[in-house]
Amino acid sequence: MNVKDERNLALLCDFYELTMGRGYFHSEVKDKIAYFDVFFRRVPDGGGYAIAAGLEQIAEYIKGLHFTESDIEFLRGKKIFDEEFLEYLKTFRFTGDVWAVPEGTVVFPYEPILTVRAPVIEAQLIETYILLQINHQSLIATKASRMVRVADGRPISEFGSRRAHGESAAVCGARAAYIGGCAGTACALSDKLFGVPAGGTMAHSWVQMFDTEYEAFETYCKLYPENPTLLVDTYSVFDSGIPNAIKAFKNVLWPRGLKKCAIRIDSGDITYITKKARRVLDEAGLTDCKIVISNSLDEYLIRDLLSQGAQIDSFGVGERLITAQSCAVFGGVYKLAATEDRNGVITPKIKISENIEKITNPGFKKVYRFYSNEQGGKAEADLICLFDETIDEDAPIELFDPKYTWKRKTLTDFTARELLVRVFRDGELVYDFPPLAEVRDHCAREVATMWDEVKRFENPHNYYVDLSQKLWDLKNGMLNDRTKREK
Amino acid sequence: MNVKDERNLALLCDFYELTMGRGYFHSEVKDKIAYFDVFFRRVPDGGGYAIAAGLEQIAEYIKGLHFTESDIEFLRGKKIFDEEFLEYLKTFRFTGDVWAVPEGTVVFPYEPILTVRAPVIEAQLIETYILLQINHQSLIATKASRMVRVADGRPISEFGSRRAHGESAAVCGARAAYIGGCAGTACALSDKLFGVPAGGTMAHSWVQMFDTEYEAFETYCKLYPENPTLLVDTYSVFDSGIPNAIKAFKNVLWPRGLKKCAIRIDSGDITYITKKARRVLDEAGLTDCKIVISNSLDEYLIRDLLSQGAQIDSFGVGERLITAQSCAVFGGVYKLAATEDRNGVITPKIKISENIEKITNPGFKKVYRFYSNEQGGKAEADLICLFDETIDEDAPIELFDPKYTWKRKTLTDFTARELLVRVFRDGELVYDFPPLAEVRDHCAREVATMWDEVKRFENPHNYYVDLSQKLWDLKNGMLNDRTKREK
Repeated sequence: MNVKDERNLALLCDFYELTMGRGYFHSEVKDKIAYFDVFFRRVPDGGGYAIAAGLEQIAEYIKGLHFTESDIEFLRGKKIFDEEFLEYLKTFRFTGDVWAVPEGTVVFPYEPILTVRAPVIEAQLIETYILLQINHQSLIATKASRMVRVADGRPISEFGSRRAHGESAAVCGARAAYIGGCAGTACALSDKLFGVPAGGTMAHSWVQMFDTEYEAFETYCKLYPENPTLLVDTYSVFDSGIPNAIKAFKNVLWPRGLKKCAIRIDSGDITYITKKARRVLDEAGLTDCKIVISNSLDEYLIRDLLSQGAQIDSFGVGERLITAQSCAVFGGVYKLAATEDRNGVITPKIKISENIEKITNPGFKKVYRFYSNEQGGKAEADLICLFDETIDEDAPIELFDPKYTWKRKTLTDFTARELLVRVFRDGELVYDFPPLAEVRDHCAREVATMWDEVKRFENPHNYYVDLSQKLWDLKNGMLNDRTKREK
Repeated sequence: MNVKDERNLALLCDFYELTMGRGYFHSEVKDKIAYFDVFFRRVPDGGGYAIAAGLEQIAEYIKGLHFTESDIEFLRGKKIFDEEFLEYLKTFRFTGDVWAVPEGTVVFPYEPILTVRAPVIEAQLIETYILLQINHQSLIATKASRMVRVADGRPISEFGSRRAHGESAAVCGARAAYIGGCAGTACALSDKLFGVPAGGTMAHSWVQMFDTEYEAFETYCKLYPENPTLLVDTYSVFDSGIPNAIKAFKNVLWPRGLKKCAIRIDSGDITYITKKARRVLDEAGLTDCKIVISNSLDEYLIRDLLSQGAQIDSFGVGERLITAQSCAVFGGVYKLAATEDRNGVITPKIKISENIEKITNPGFKKVYRFYSNEQGGKAEADLICLFDETIDEDAPIELFDPKYTWKRKTLTDFTARELLVRVFRDGELVYDFPPLAEVRDHCAREVATMWDEVKRFENPHNYYVDLSQKLWDLKNGMLNDRTKREK
């Protein structure tokens, strides 16, 4: 993307959506309704849970979806799209239905987190954009959730725009990090567009622009006397940075009766430096001075630093969050689950594969999450059902492992919640998106319902995602029947 | 970013660029000119070279840079920017100079790949966007170059939009992958915007939408008889996929005298399957049928597959290219190198650090690359000089390692090329961007000038990036003098 573009994203699709689109258009399946599920197969970083995000951008994309004259012109130039199909694209709009889990919801492998029901051409066309947003924002929200958890109440700011994979990775990445629990961002545009609180103070270049480090600090404190953060490692943290910072705070802030201030350290041995820095600051009477740390941090480093007693009040996290560096792919897929003919008859579809984990769950489905009333509302299991199934909260329910069906568990005294909500109905957006701060709160509440065992970094407990008996029977029947479809 | 945004990117910066901006505005350094260098410290994946990319988007950003009324309103709402500074922002434009290596150029750690000379507020403000584009696109171009090299002439298509980190990661990522040598992309928008050739045929859902696999194939071949690619692993590659594909090719293509076709395989043991597939196709008389492979590929898997004799004609590469998964960060930084006062006197600046590799090269600089005339134009070394130095190609030149200064090498019979070109002069764009296909050719020529030793995946030869005697003396003098600046 570049500054000259118009913001139309109809062509932000894989080209095969268009070749298939024309194919459906000229074939007998044109009028069929297709059901597609979005799900993922593995939690990044070997974690126990993921955070869904990206839905609001998907809704805006679908709402605005249309082909401009220049899009049509571009497609005509490819010399494989006939005029009849191009005419169809000129008035193309999304007319279908979408269900999805609200942003900030904890989600698990193999369960649908978004379902599209639409005429097949429409449902196919939006595949790429839906996946792109969910995969990107869920990746970053999930990573942020890990870091926030291990920082144990200390605020984390997202600092990574400069290492993000392009413009929207910076702006929507900051948004997703906020959903996952970050306190704010350095990205000004993410604040303007989404209300993610942006902040920031100085770079090393600020310090270097002045004749002396002290002058740089003094100037900054005079301009921003309310809680200035001084970067103290441009030359030498203890020989000059902290002494100059202390002097500037005392000379500029103290006479005004101001106490709130901070230093930031961006290099070196953080545990050693922060312990010593805390001592030096306290001895100088700056007990209110906070210590902010940034320097290629991730959840593992944060855990190590805190376990070693590093004296840190807050973190700035850059490249390893905004790129989810240790595991930069969220593998959401978009798979056909069913078709529906003109008479409303739904035919479940299954994707077979030599790779067992690539076999899909057929049919039009929904997902329940069970919370234990005895256990303070902890989440116990999810159940994928067919769409017409309901749960009776007053009766015990027996769940079973879909692979090892002899592994069974009976839940009693539970609350069942349906995870997916309706987002589009007949092409109309019917979901009210909550303010982003509420999404962030929802995420925090969701994570709190998960057992610690699920949130472990190493070998987390495998949260149960089971199939209803009816869905299991359907799937198993189709697998046994598979040869029929191959002729 | 979302579909509603206006495309103004002035606020796509770290917030500290703005707090520093206001700080400079109200301080004595306001009128100083600053020189900033972009460079990086490590080649991703432990490789021996990187490919620079992203410059065209940077130029468009700088050209269009301004603060809209709503940007000003947003900043006013933050309650730390005074009206005088906001007034200044209202007419803000970039008035400085930019030099950069052309896109597609092979680059190495520590050498400037872009230099900004501008009034300090302007030079500071554009930091984040410049880094974001260079870091993203260079990352992907570099990764693509590795994959293309190991594919040994077989075309690679970039398929990763759905796993990209947001919209621009998909669109500009496809652009960067093309610069690095990919043959094309699946991303339609990248074709429309940048001319990266887009292509694509069918997903598993196409096959599933029809009552039988054969019907899906036959329908597709009738609609796209010119070189159709059929995806053969929806049900079972050998029990149904390939037999049905052969039947469809013979029934639809052969009667029309058409021979060009392909099958795509997206799962399973690729070496085993492609060898067997080749045999089956050839036995059926389909010797012209190509085999296309996709399935979480990267340069290591491609190398392994080809060394095992897998029968592959071309590759589709998705998530591991578009996210550069194995090393998802390109660590370009933006460091102050010098200041200039009103009288044109340049003062070099250096960033000291406990981490030796974080110490910067001071001064306004340029970079030469030396090509050996005897060795068919192979690149032998780069030399970072001060801006007023020149190279005499007719005299031998002695280079020395900046760390181990006793390691010396004399070059004779060489051609010297200056790497950075002027992009902006006094705020005006003065560089003509070549068409993207030319950038791709330039990249291929650049890579061809590198010794194979530099291109190895494991323990590549450390290409020489040396400092001129004059620059070395300057840097060393400043390090010895360092204590002066810390007071």
